[in-house]
Amino acid sequence: MENIKLTIRYDGNKFNGFQRQAQQPNSRTVQQILEEAFSALYKEEVIVIGAGRTDKGVHAKNQVCNIKVKGKIPIEKIPLAVNSLLPSDLSVMKTELVEDEFHSRYSAKGKIYKYQILSHKVRDPFIRNNSWHVPIPLNLEEMQKATKYFVGTHNFKAFCSAKSGKSDFIRTIEWLKIDKQNNIISITIKGNGFLYNMVRIIVGTLVDIGHGKYPHHEVKAILESQERKRSGATAPAHGLCLEEIIY
Amino acid sequence: MENIKLTIRYDGNKFNGFQRQAQQPNSRTVQQILEEAFSALYKEEVIVIGAGRTDKGVHAKNQVCNIKVKGKIPIEKIPLAVNSLLPSDLSVMKTELVEDEFHSRYSAKGKIYKYQILSHKVRDPFIRNNSWHVPIPLNLEEMQKATKYFVGTHNFKAFCSAKSGKSDFIRTIEWLKIDKQNNIISITIKGNGFLYNMVRIIVGTLVDIGHGKYPHHEVKAILESQERKRSGATAPAHGLCLEEIIY
Repeated sequence: MENIKLTIRYDGNKFNGFQRQAQQPNSRTVQQILEEAFSALYKEEVIVIGAGRTDKGVHAKNQVCNIKVKGKIPIEKIPLAVNSLLPSDLSVMKTELVEDEFHSRYSAKGKIYKYQILSHKVRDPFIRNNSWHVPIPLNLEEMQKATKYFVGTHNFKAFCSAKSGKSDFIRTIEWLKIDKQNNIISITIKGNGFLYNMVRIIVGTLVDIGHGKYPHHEVKAILESQERKRSGATAPAHGLCLEEIIY
Repeated sequence: MENIKLTIRYDGNKFNGFQRQAQQPNSRTVQQILEEAFSALYKEEVIVIGAGRTDKGVHAKNQVCNIKVKGKIPIEKIPLAVNSLLPSDLSVMKTELVEDEFHSRYSAKGKIYKYQILSHKVRDPFIRNNSWHVPIPLNLEEMQKATKYFVGTHNFKAFCSAKSGKSDFIRTIEWLKIDKQNNIISITIKGNGFLYNMVRIIVGTLVDIGHGKYPHHEVKAILESQERKRSGATAPAHGLCLEEIIY
């Protein structure tokens, strides 16, 4: 058996997230569509293991998965072969042969996410599907000052959906950058792992700060409170993109 | 009456082109949707005059239109007011009060179009709706050498759809540039006017040259022949974008 690392890209708009939903076998998920395509290609059941579970509507530029298959297709021919069986909003970009021990989720050392905000009073049809339109002006400087409170190892319970079943809320954010080009604010964040909705709640909180609802140093108090109700709203899914998995 | 210049943007994928289709009143065209929205806003019939008729599937970053209306809405408030009545793939980006004589089509001195090609063996879900995927490698240098034959004033009958009812095929191309960034080849072209499908046939011909079907200097012979059958295929609509109208 060969262990194959897949780098995949998808436009999340029409997917019900990455993870196959056992209770809803007809739900359009990335994992299910990949498994169906690889199983058809290899004429046997293929299990796709993903590095991270992106939510419904979230995009991925370089999501990583791995599959274990009998090596009957040359590694470099797999992308074209499987893409011919995949819909146009999902593509296998790259394949690499990796050692048996490689596991796309457990071997991952970190992830980079990027969130895009269109900060302009008029909406833009070209980026409507991959940015959150925030028409009220944002104070970028205040938002940038808030980033330092997120960086480091913290209990992120206040930035985790209350629906999460997790009990360990300690995560490490290596860096968080906010850039603006033309009218687009990009919030990029690298961490060793993220809780359910964590990036989107961080973005919602930064937007509150940009709107002057509370000062930038409030982030410190929110983190310490460990209370979800004190952080901002969950930013919409379609502005978020999983950029990279670090191994 | 006020004469108002509108700069509009649309994602062409779900439009049957710009122009209202008298014989198909239910066809989803940019002009019809704009006219319905402005008529609702002004509570009277508003005619929208467009600078150029983009085809079904073609995008526009800065299409220009004008309307003549009673000036009851402050000019700077029109974009937000009308956008609230428009679908998300169409937006009025800017409005300006112009002199009575301004006519978006007749006053135009030139147009800039941009065509995007994804030149890579693997397709990309992120740009599938605004680029033509050409998996077979292209010889960029040969394509660039061909550009000089298009520049200048020529009879472009060989680069006009045979379905066109036009009899005047003389047009002037001011410049034509081909750039490559990562895997995306952008073909940008400025001219005083374009025949039906002209940009897309020029692109199809450049791709033939990039594939070595004929040498770059063949363009001269094709132009002189005035025969549509000698030029390349019409490149797909969704790679094309109307970038700018020059006044």
